[in-house]
Amino acid sequence: MLFAVRMDVDIPRDLAPDERTDLVTREKAYCQELQKSGEWVHIWRCVGQYSNLSVFDVADNEALHRILWGLPLFPFMSIEVTPLAQHPSDLAAGGPVR
Amino acid sequence: MLFAVRMDVDIPRDLAPDERTDLVTREKAYCQELQKSGEWVHIWRCVGQYSNLSVFDVADNEALHRILWGLPLFPFMSIEVTPLAQHPSDLAAGGPVR
Amino acid sequence: MLFAVRMDVDIPRDLAPDERTDLVTREKAYCQELQKSGEWVHIWRCVGQYSNLSVFDVADNEALHRILWGLPLFPFMSIEVTPLAQHPSDLAAGGPVR
Amino acid sequence: MLFAVRMDVDIPRDLAPDERTDLVTREKAYCQELQKSGEWVHIWRCVGQYSNLSVFDVADNEALHRILWGLPLFPFMSIEVTPLAQHPSDLAAGGPVR
Amino acid sequence: MLFAVRMDVDIPRDLAPDERTDLVTREKAYCQELQKSGEWVHIWRCVGQYSNLSVFDVADNEALHRILWGLPLFPFMSIEVTPLAQHPSDLAAGGPVR
Amino acid sequence: MLFAVRMDVDIPRDLAPDERTDLVTREKAYCQELQKSGEWVHIWRCVGQYSNLSVFDVADNEALHRILWGLPLFPFMSIEVTPLAQHPSDLAAGGPVR
Amino acid sequence: MLFAVRMDVDIPRDLAPDERTDLVTREKAYCQELQKSGEWVHIWRCVGQYSNLSVFDVADNEALHRILWGLPLFPFMSIEVTPLAQHPSDLAAGGPVR
Amino acid sequence: MLFAVRMDVDIPRDLAPDERTDLVTREKAYCQELQKSGEWVHIWRCVGQYSNLSVFDVADNEALHRILWGLPLFPFMSIEVTPLAQHPSDLAAGGPVR
Amino acid sequence: MLFAVRMDVDIPRDLAPDERTDLVTREKAYCQELQKSGEWVHIWRCVGQYSNLSVFDVADNEALHRILWGLPLFPFMSIEVTPLAQHPSDLAAGGPVR
Amino acid sequence: MLFAVRMDVDIPRDLAPDERTDLVTREKAYCQELQKSGEWVHIWRCVGQYSNLSVFDVADNEALHRILWGLPLFPFMSIEVTPLAQHPSDLAAGGPVR
Repeated sequence: MLFAVRMDVDIPRDLAPDERTDLVTREKAYCQELQKSGEWVHIWRCVGQYSNLSVFDVADNEALHRILWGLPLFPFMSIEVTPLAQHPSDLAAGGPVR
Repeated sequence: MLFAVRMDVDIPRDLAPDERTDLVTREKAYCQELQKSGEWVHIWRCVGQYSNLSVFDVADNEALHRILWGLPLFPFMSIEVTPLAQHPSDLAAGGPVR
Repeated sequence: MLFAVRMDVDIPRDLAPDERTDLVTREKAYCQELQKSGEWVHIWRCVGQYSNLSVFDVADNEALHRILWGLPLFPFMSIEVTPLAQHPSDLAAGGPVR
Repeated sequence: MLFAVRMDVDIPRDLAPDERTDLVTREKAYCQELQKSGEWVHIWRCVGQYSNLSVFDVADNEALHRILWGLPLFPFMSIEVTPLAQHPSDLAAGGPVR
Repeated sequence: MLFAVRMDVDIPRDLAPDERTDLVTREKAYCQELQKSGEWVHIWRCVGQYSNLSVFDVADNEALHRILWGLPLFPFMSIEVTPLAQHPSDLAAGGPVR
Repeated sequence: MLFAVRMDVDIPRDLAPDERTDLVTREKAYCQELQKSGEWVHIWRCVGQYSNLSVFDVADNEALHRILWGLPLFPFMSIEVTPLAQHPSDLAAGGPVR
Repeated sequence: MLFAVRMDVDIPRDLAPDERTDLVTREKAYCQELQKSGEWVHIWRCVGQYSNLSVFDVADNEALHRILWGLPLFPFMSIEVTPLAQHPSDLAAGGPVR
Repeated sequence: MLFAVRMDVDIPRDLAPDERTDLVTREKAYCQELQKSGEWVHIWRCVGQYSNLSVFDVADNEALHRILWGLPLFPFMSIEVTPLAQHPSDLAAGGPVR
Repeated sequence: MLFAVRMDVDIPRDLAPDERTDLVTREKAYCQELQKSGEWVHIWRCVGQYSNLSVFDVADNEALHRILWGLPLFPFMSIEVTPLAQHPSDLAAGGPVR
Repeated sequence: MLFAVRMDVDIPRDLAPDERTDLVTREKAYCQELQKSGEWVHIWRCVGQYSNLSVFDVADNEALHRILWGLPLFPFMSIEVTPLAQHPSDLAAGGPVR
């Protein structure tokens, strides 16, 4: 089941540099682990923004919430979730869900 | 070069049924042709909306504008364009652009 | 899987009265059928608005989109979808989904 | 009398961890006490947000305000209140208020 | 139980003059009847707008919805409802609800 | 001359408790003094908000500004002012201004 | 007593040309009459808009509403009203109101 | 050449009282100097707001920017600029610019 | 004197095709004439929109308003005007205005 | 490939003066270097704002993101990006891209 998620990041300026580096490192590892498991299907940088547009393929709403809530940068993000369905014009519509 | 494009469709109620059918049919054909050419990379339906979220892979801004302007439903759409770049956490970052 | 859905209805004034009555009647039947099937869990009127706040319990995003797209009043609605998950303070969290 | 209430939580980063834990613990207890009394009818987590969508069944506006004002996290919440009424399509309309 | 209600009126230009006059006349009668019954407590014109700010004193949400839904101009209004409670600084707080 | 005024209060968390108590106490006294003088005609709590909706009856714009600017909590409020006039449907229209 | 008023004009395209000309002519006459009486103190065109920013000097809210409601173009305007007071830095503050 | 400028002031609470007093004093002097030079034509207080609506008469855009950028309170203001032109209904249109 | 102007075009669907063609042709001629005179310095299409972003170099506000008001498509445009000044980082700042 | 970029700057008040000066100096140097390389084609100050409107001519989205992300003031900016294409009315349309 697919969801588009836009994440806007705003790390407070007074966060200790070590803590910041640690957060960003853990965020990247967390993200890549979920790419490997096939749940974080796409991640793109929005040009000129500390933001990404991502697509998730998860079992259900609970799974998506668990993933997003667990993001190391979650406390510093504002997040917008859009549930997606197959589009009738999608050539891949006849095959398995990507 | 990737762009996320959100299209919200609002076909006027008083459009002749034939004209409407014709438009929607041509829209689908146009969309699938661009999927085959590799320029319209993703199209998803936004749940509960007459809307789609799409990703385009085009040569440049001119190419994207030509495609969007040529959409049979263009006069009845409101369109939002977000330029995308590779995200540093993307596992595919070392390989070819998807 | 639960979703909150807010529907704001705006039926055009120049719709033929018969067509309007027919639409509203079919909307009600459609809604009640889905209540019986257990997919349309709650429907409340928003006070002072031609709007409702509803909760759906569906198999997945595709199922929700199929239901909303099929609403007889869909062309005259603006719809907002919020995916829901279980709240950790919910007393029913240990038991079956309500 | 039913009300939908959306609560968005934003606990300041510099709150002492003990104070934070205490607040969240008291919030949960307060919430569950009102579930038991039958006033806090539903609480759902909004996916990807530190937010909930709740439904209250209270005697009147005063009762609702007393409950919301008393929330341990009230100073860190932004709250939106929507008064609800019975919907004519609700199958339960002939029976007791759910 | 008190509610503030803001009503913005937008009567379509192509409404037949007779129908318009009839609507406005019935709206006024309906409003004054509810003033006499004590449910429509205040009505003020917002300066420079075809709008009013009103205060209702009703038994419950259902009663308020019934009143607003029944407004002859309801189809041509956009309505905003704010539930009110007694303010702790209100000198009348110790006495009967105004 | 009547004005509706909506005040949303946001007292900074790091205000000294004494200062806060003092402010709130003076705010209440100030408000009640103006109720007695007949200038602060109504004050209602907006349910679930640290906000009030008030109605003022003042000599002119200058008088209203002087009152609002003098509110002890003024630095921590955001304020919205709506000038009011008599509504043609108001039963009291023929009598003295309420 | 001064008010700033912004008026945005949107005359429907299908208004008969004669009716349009008549309206605009009467609007101009109405405006100039009020300039002569000293109530419509300033009127400026907002560059690139079918809009004006005006300042009125009127006896009270009722007077302002009567003027705005009577504008020949009132049904085709959206209007924003800002009550003004004397500014403490205004050099004219010691003298008569301009 | 005329411009309407709306300035909303938000002086941080933790500014040293001396610095605050100094800023406000210099702001007033700066404003009055420009009134004397004829560039700051009008300044009104917006009722209930720490805001003003002003009209400037300047040689060009550069002159206006220099004035606004030089405001002692500039770092604590949000500013909205509206270029103005002569209105065809303005009785003063045939005479010198006011 | 420079201004950025964003124009969003929305030609009504029921405009006669001849009238539409005529308008668009005249718009283009008008635009190019002003490019030749040096007043319409830049015009760019906003990708995926029936919109342009333009820069004008005009004598004053009056000149800009006259140009925009005279656009053949003016009645079908919504227009946003931003006055521009020289930027201190602009390398051309020492030379003639571009 | 052209992009319009609006940058709104908000440097925190508590930044050390040295750090602030250093940032602004480096921002200017960075900007001028990119003007020389031909990528930062235009930069204008928005009148009355700590903001600029710029036009970039870059190879692709990646290049634009690299430039914007590298701005010394990036952490203190909010940025809006609009992809541009050649406008059919642009007289320069037949020649090389400006």
